[in-house]
Parts: sequence; structure tokens; C-alpha cells
Amino acid sequence: MTQLLEAPPGLKGVVTAETTIGDVRGEEGFYHYRQYDAIELARERTFEEVWCLLRDGELPGPGRLAAFTGQVAQARRFSPRVAGSLAAVAALARDDQPLQALRAAYDLVVLDGHLRPWLDIDAAELAAQALAAGAVFPTLVIALYRLARGQELIEPRADLGHAANYLYMLEGQEPSPARVRALESYLISTIDHGFSASTFTARVVASTGADLGSAVLAALGSLSGPLHGGAPSRVLDMLDEIGTPDRAGHWIRDTIAGGGIVMGFGHAVYRTADPRNTMLRTVAEELGSPRLEFAETVERAALAVFRDLRPGLPIYANVEFYASLVLDAIGLPRELFTPTFAVSRVIGWTAHIIEQTKNNKILRPSARYVGPPPGSA
Amino acid sequence: MTQLLEAPPGLKGVVTAETTIGDVRGEEGFYHYRQYDAIELARERTFEEVWCLLRDGELPGPGRLAAFTGQVAQARRFSPRVAGSLAAVAALARDDQPLQALRAAYDLVVLDGHLRPWLDIDAAELAAQALAAGAVFPTLVIALYRLARGQELIEPRADLGHAANYLYMLEGQEPSPARVRALESYLISTIDHGFSASTFTARVVASTGADLGSAVLAALGSLSGPLHGGAPSRVLDMLDEIGTPDRAGHWIRDTIAGGGIVMGFGHAVYRTADPRNTMLRTVAEELGSPRLEFAETVERAALAVFRDLRPGLPIYANVEFYASLVLDAIGLPRELFTPTFAVSRVIGWTAHIIEQTKNNKILRPSARYVGPPPGSA
Repeated sequence: MTQLLEAPPGLKGVVTAETTIGDVRGEEGFYHYRQYDAIELARERTFEEVWCLLRDGELPGPGRLAAFTGQVAQARRFSPRVAGSLAAVAALARDDQPLQALRAAYDLVVLDGHLRPWLDIDAAELAAQALAAGAVFPTLVIALYRLARGQELIEPRADLGHAANYLYMLEGQEPSPARVRALESYLISTIDHGFSASTFTARVVASTGADLGSAVLAALGSLSGPLHGGAPSRVLDMLDEIGTPDRAGHWIRDTIAGGGIVMGFGHAVYRTADPRNTMLRTVAEELGSPRLEFAETVERAALAVFRDLRPGLPIYANVEFYASLVLDAIGLPRELFTPTFAVSRVIGWTAHIIEQTKNNKILRPSARYVGPPPGSA
Repeated sequence: MTQLLEAPPGLKGVVTAETTIGDVRGEEGFYHYRQYDAIELARERTFEEVWCLLRDGELPGPGRLAAFTGQVAQARRFSPRVAGSLAAVAALARDDQPLQALRAAYDLVVLDGHLRPWLDIDAAELAAQALAAGAVFPTLVIALYRLARGQELIEPRADLGHAANYLYMLEGQEPSPARVRALESYLISTIDHGFSASTFTARVVASTGADLGSAVLAALGSLSGPLHGGAPSRVLDMLDEIGTPDRAGHWIRDTIAGGGIVMGFGHAVYRTADPRNTMLRTVAEELGSPRLEFAETVERAALAVFRDLRPGLPIYANVEFYASLVLDAIGLPRELFTPTFAVSRVIGWTAHIIEQTKNNKILRPSARYVGPPPGSA
């Protein structure tokens, strides 16, 4: 018999990898990418700079950044073959499952790119595949959005940064620097966040030697799970449903009493305020979000109810809460909130996939059979 | 700080689930589905009977079996919408990555079916989704194969069993009972096999509350990894390369000396002969496989080399070795070997996904940060 080891439910706290990509310190309300405070990066750097940091382990100098930015701009387009097949995905897609549509679209890109298992290719080819995934995600997201509305596709522009080009492909005109900066702060702050379920999924699939595309697609599936989080649009839906400030307290009490979930509160790791939220609240304020005052009223009401009903439990607003206000104030349609999260998080996934290949061992745990013994039928 | 627990590399031997689906006893060379010897099931039962067993926990009586068989036959067809989009996948697919093509095709089915997270649906709807996945996989596999060759699609036949219909859709005529029985034995014997990497992947994704399709797609990606196994065609390629009996010993020695891999040998769990192989060897013999004698010569030569180079290590031929001969003797083209494995294993995945939902906790382990500390830049 193989010696079996008991693990806590959900593998909570079980170390399955060593990483140099980043970490979350739940007690301190602090997280970092490599050796940099992630919030400082989100306020001060461009998306491409932080992407480079995750990829290379250090912030790029001007030459390196220019070269990288050029590579990303090149890799934004999908092939004419994919373009021809994308309509087939758009025809099947529905607005309320944007991650599934993005996955089916990226699946076409993977098929077309004929991505080989990472075990069969060298590090340079794997790095190019990772860059291509991050570069093409925004193009796919916006293409699906426009196709669903019968709009013509807008070609990506190589002279625009990642965030600016995203808004440009959506709207057909250059966005204001303030909106670009706000989107960039959001995107940077959500690139990575410890060992989330989707990040773990990506590493499990990569551990089999599979191609990078297989690992990214699996992570997308995991991100679509309601227990993962990453759907800030649900917070806006909730704010709409509450409607007016005077209804907040009652609505939250009734929802909890009815076994429902109050969106945008609580986190698996943080035991204090989520640092992303503090930053995103400021960004929403800078953008002049018309919903900010109402959202703060709802937040105060929710925290009061939680203190009352669950005294001693450290429940705070999480990243989805103020992220929803930022994305809304930028002017992104609600259907794009979750895909926009994926546009950012794919950079984290690919960094983890590459790290997994460096010192790989297949992730293959055990199960304990607890059914009737064989022969007892 | 969260308390972190060290786990063995690859989570080897770590119990991440309790299961009543089945178990593998590596020391005994024995595995079972529920309380039944899997090899006995493979020899004596129909595929639908064993599918029912995995799904319901017990073998069906005649009434239950007839109802289930009817449901499966109904669910074999994909919608006209998917049919219209499938050509877009076939146009991008290449013969050497059949699992990626199957995944992209099933991704269209998932998108079209608008599968909702299992957290949002009841057990009956989830069971119907699981049945539909198992029923449609064969249709997709054969459709992709025929589309790639410019052949017209052959509609599934509701009056044929799962294995017979598979060969019928490929060939356009009813297969002989001997070929059907051989395929059925192969398919039953590979439905499930403990906590393989793809099975674990399916459960990780399901643990986020995601829809069944997301979990199945992730498992397909994991199955495509070279470290997973499940590609019996590689054994035939190797036999072709060896060519003649007299070359076997040298070829194997040279391959190992050059750092190459001898296909079809070794297993993560078995420390004795793989019971699937013993059974499949008999099936190959019954089918009159023209390659059997040569394969046995290669097997003997390989075992002799392993005993010589790695004395004391329990290396045996694994399931891929004689599975390749069985699939070949049935007359399946080599490009279909790995997708045929997926046609069987999807039944195991869906059983595990449903089991995961019964007592779910999100699978979210930890990583240990070992990079430079924040602020040290």
C-alpha cells in the first residue's frame, strides 16, 4: 500500500510550490510582485513594465521595455484563420457567460498556433507563447464583444500601450490619459494574488507537461467558478438592486437571513482591509465615480451588519467592491468586467506556468477509497 | 501568518478527497470500480452497464439500463448550431493534436449548451450534463476525423450500443460483434484509474463551483500532457521504428543510453503487472492481432534490459502497450487512439466531478515565497 498522508480540507495551507513570483501577507494587508509592493507598482508603473517584472524577475530598463512593448504590440493580432473561425464562437456565445466565450475563442488560437507540450520546446518558445497569450487576450475579448453587437472589428494599434489599446479597440478613439491610467492601475493590481484556485489549476495542468495553452484554458475554466471570485460586475448588480441608501441596512440583513450572499465582502487570506480596495477606492474618487458615495454607504452598512451578526470575524470589502466602481467609472460595459479581470490575470498564470516548468514534478495526489470493499456486491 | 504545511513533491500520497468511485491497489495489481473488479466488468459487461455503475453506484437492472441507454442515444447528437461551427474547428485542427481538436470542439458544445455553474443548478441537471458529455464525445471525435478527410458525417444510430455506434459512425456499416466486444473491453477498462492527473484537474476546477464543462475541458488539457500517459499510439510508432524482432534488444538499449523513453513501460502506482495489460493481451489474441508475437518479443527484450540496467526496480509493460495492439486489431486508425481513450475517461471524470460537488471545499493550497524580500530592490 502507498503510504497516505492526511491533508486539511481543500489543501488549505499545504505548500505545493516554491515561488519567487510574489506573495500575499493576509495579516498585514500587504501583497507584492517579486520584491516590489504591488500597490506601488499599480500607482507608478505601466502595465508593460510590471508584465516584464513578472516575466523576467526585474523591472526593465528603457531599451528592454521598448523591445518588449514592440513584441506585445506585434502579438496582439490573431491570424486570418482564427478571424474566420471566431464568428463561429461569437454566434454561440451569450453575454452572461463572457469567460466561456473567451475560452472558446482562445481555444481556437491555441489550436491554430499548434502549441506543443512545453516538455518538447525550449524556454524561448515557451516565453513567446506566454507573451502571445497575454497580448491576444484583449483583442479576443473586445472582438467577441463587438461581434456580439454586429459591430465591425477595430484593429489593434501598435503605437498604444496595453491599456490604451484595449479601450481604443472597444471605442474606436484614443481614450483620455486619466481613463488609461485608472485601467492600468486596476489591471496591474490584479495580475497575480498568491495561489488562487485558477493559478493552482494552471500549475496542475502544466505539471503534466502539457502545452501552455492547455494550462491557460484550464485556469479560465476555474476562474469561471463562483467560488473563485473575480466577477466585479456582481457588485454593481447588487448596488442596483439595493437602489437607495436608506435600503442598504435592511437589504443586507434580509439577504443574509435568506441565506444569500452579499457581493464584494470577505477574502480567503486577508484578515484586514484588502490593500487593492484601498487603492481602487482612491482611483474611483479620482475618476469622479458617481456611485462612490452610495457604495461607501453600502459598505458601512454591510460592515455594521457583519459586526453585529458575526462579531469577531474579520470581514472587509474585497477587491471586487471598489474594482466595480473603477471599471464602471472608466466607462467599461458591465459585460466586460470579468473578461477584463482575465486580461490581467493571464499574465500571472503564464508566469506561474513557466515557473512550474523550471522544477517540475507532476501534481498527482491521492484519494482515499471509502466505499464498500470489492467483492461485497 | 497562515500556518504552512510541507507536502511531498507533487503531493504524492496526499489525500485530497474521499471517494467511493474506485481504487487502485498498486502492490496487488488490482483495481476496482465501486465494489466490482474492473477487469471482470470489462470482460462481462456492456459499456452502458459500467457507465451506470459509476454514475449510480450500482449496476442497473434491465429497466434502468434500457432507460439509460435510450437517454445516451438521444444525447449523442450535437445541435445544428454546433454542427455549423464545427467546421471552423476542423479547419484549424491538425492530425497530430487530436485532443486539442476534441477540446475545441467540446468547447463549442459547452458554449452552445450554456452550462451553468453546478452551484446554481440541481443534481438532476448536473447528471444530465454529465451524461451529455459522455454521449457526445464519440460523435465529436469521429466528426472531426471525417471532416479532416473531407468525408460526410454519419449520423449516430440510436439502436446501437456506445461502442458499436462509435465504429458505425467511423465506417458507415455495422461492425462485427467481436470488434465491438473488444472495443467495449478496452473502453470499460480505461474509464477510471484512481486519482490520475486529469481526474485531479477535473476536481480542482469543479471545486471552484464552475460548470461541468469547464472541469471536463481542463481535464482534457491535462490529459494532453506527455507525463499523463494515455497515448497508446506512441507504442505502435515505437514498434514500427524497431521494425524486426532481432533489433529489439539493441534498439531499447540504445534508446535508454541516449536518454530516450521506451514507450508503454512503467506506472506511477503498479508495482507488479498492470491488470489491464494482462486482459488486453488476451483480447488482442482473441482478435488475432498480427502484431502480437512481435510485441511480445519487444516486451521480453525490454524487461530483460530493465532488469539488467535497473535491477530491483519493478518496471512492467503498462496499459498503453497492449491497448495499442487491441485498438490496432479493431481497425481504428492510429490518430484515433488517444481520442478513444478520452471517450472512455470522460465517464470517470464526470463521476468524479459529481462526487466533488457532494461535499465540496475549494481546492486552494499554498505556495512558499522564496524570492528576495519586498523592499530589497
